[in-house]
Amino acid sequence: MNDEPERISLSLTDVRALAVRVLEANGLGPAHVDFVADTILAGERDGCAAHGIYRLTNCVKTLRAGKVNPNAVPKELSAASAVTRIDADGGFAQAAFAAGLPRLVERTRSYGIGILAINRCVHFAALWPEIEAVVEQGLVAFACTPSHAWVAPAGGNAPLFGTNPIAFGWPRPGEHPFVFDFATSAAARGEIELHARAGKPIPEGWAIDEDGCSTTDAAAGLSGSLLTFGGHKGSALSALVELLAGPLIGDMTSAESLSYDDGAKASPFGGEIIIAIDPEGVLGEAAAAHIARAEGLFEAILAQGARLPSERRYASRRRSAVEGVTVPKQLYDEIVSYA
Amino acid sequence: MNDEPERISLSLTDVRALAVRVLEANGLGPAHVDFVADTILAGERDGCAAHGIYRLTNCVKTLRAGKVNPNAVPKELSAASAVTRIDADGGFAQAAFAAGLPRLVERTRSYGIGILAINRCVHFAALWPEIEAVVEQGLVAFACTPSHAWVAPAGGNAPLFGTNPIAFGWPRPGEHPFVFDFATSAAARGEIELHARAGKPIPEGWAIDEDGCSTTDAAAGLSGSLLTFGGHKGSALSALVELLAGPLIGDMTSAESLSYDDGAKASPFGGEIIIAIDPEGVLGEAAAAHIARAEGLFEAILAQGARLPSERRYASRRRSAVEGVTVPKQLYDEIVSYA
Repeated sequence: MNDEPERISLSLTDVRALAVRVLEANGLGPAHVDFVADTILAGERDGCAAHGIYRLTNCVKTLRAGKVNPNAVPKELSAASAVTRIDADGGFAQAAFAAGLPRLVERTRSYGIGILAINRCVHFAALWPEIEAVVEQGLVAFACTPSHAWVAPAGGNAPLFGTNPIAFGWPRPGEHPFVFDFATSAAARGEIELHARAGKPIPEGWAIDEDGCSTTDAAAGLSGSLLTFGGHKGSALSALVELLAGPLIGDMTSAESLSYDDGAKASPFGGEIIIAIDPEGVLGEAAAAHIARAEGLFEAILAQGARLPSERRYASRRRSAVEGVTVPKQLYDEIVSYA
Repeated sequence: MNDEPERISLSLTDVRALAVRVLEANGLGPAHVDFVADTILAGERDGCAAHGIYRLTNCVKTLRAGKVNPNAVPKELSAASAVTRIDADGGFAQAAFAAGLPRLVERTRSYGIGILAINRCVHFAALWPEIEAVVEQGLVAFACTPSHAWVAPAGGNAPLFGTNPIAFGWPRPGEHPFVFDFATSAAARGEIELHARAGKPIPEGWAIDEDGCSTTDAAAGLSGSLLTFGGHKGSALSALVELLAGPLIGDMTSAESLSYDDGAKASPFGGEIIIAIDPEGVLGEAAAAHIARAEGLFEAILAQGARLPSERRYASRRRSAVEGVTVPKQLYDEIVSYA
């Protein structure tokens, strides 16, 4: 991989069609193809290269390894009245999310707060597309999911936690929502892989080696452990993700997911939790005025020259709607070869 | 303040009696004294010096400045069925929490998840005593509250966020719960004040000066802005706290709280949100087995020689139950002078 690889232009229609072709060619059932293709499209459209067509390589690996049920039928499980629990039947998370979303929204509106717990799903995507879908309904949303055990707890020396993303969304009248979505690891594993491929050192604080010593050697970091962001605080948040989207909903921790993977290098398998809150359930008719008042916080952030967390994604979205996207030709050729 | 100030020994009974005396002498009403004294006791007992009798200085300042209603009567406001909203009537948060807790527990058990929103309260305490009270009921708990605007958003250059603590608790059968409670600022404001008093430099990354430039000068940091922990990720979490415990529940942001304070240097005024989840509401009878399975995560953390976030507090609690505590004599004398 050189620094300026040849790129080719694709319309958003091309991107989606490519995703559909690759997924169908690898046996993903018709009830799942559109959902997964939409997720791939959203990543590419919003300039998140790691979650665009590149992510099809994981999907294909997972499908070919038999680590996902291509014809999974999501099924609702019983739970308390504000809790919606969907068994994804070993399929990709998207169909289970789609099955649970209307119930999450309805119950959150009834009770003021609600949970959507997705079990036994394969999760390869960013969380913000799901967060956006909940926030579009006028709700506040939080989501998290474990991954594979690649990250050491603060003060530890071996992988235990996943990269464990946390995401949050808040509705903004007339604007794209305020959304953040970040790994609780200091850096994404893919980022360290790219440094290893390029033979470049990684910054201090990203990883430790197999002996638990701080390292700037990317390869040593990959065979050792990633570190959490923010020291013991990030580590505590990573534990929160393991607990909320693991045992709380009766699903696997990142260590259990990696052990289930058994070397297949498939996407993580396990659970996801989404919590939604209805501002009207808290404040009744006064909610709209307070949602409007929150705009003052965003204005104050922007007035300092600081960025809102989702800004770059929305800028890419506006641009790609007009111009389409460009992707590295080598990656494109690889993806096409999967179809 | 020298490095090894003279200390005096107090029993836990002495600590609580001192708190009661000081609070009563400063006009705090009988419906509040016990709650606030218990909070002060919990801080001192658990080795959190900043939340022990030292914190009485803030309580007294707040009472004398008329920034708290000493005879507040908490009152429930209407909300959706899983939401308990308590108007603290301008009083310290503790009595409002106590008024709302039984309803939070009951509703969380009914619906699987619940919110306790406390409005118009003065909040000077750590969040873990409240988290522990919820988790003792077998529930999972999350809490946060804004404070005063002392912290700049990532990429910004002026105070906007509070130190905005986030706390979480998870029940452990036969053990103290797993609890974390941390400020989303890189360091506590009090920590920087101690450096300034001692004329010691602060680490890079704690604060910026009034021009928005990184500083290791504690005084320059205090007149500038604190920074969040973990860069843009900590900053995003701090915004989450502003939104959830501010506009979502119809209460003030940290900037609004500081403006309300108007130079009195009283404790922050505004809201607090507590979210509780009942594992049995999610999993029914299977919950206990999964709660037991979560112990594997804690064992794996400890097996690496890493610490659980609440360990040091529980060690202090065991020790102080037998030995009592020691406090700096100068602080003790100051506190006694308030009575």
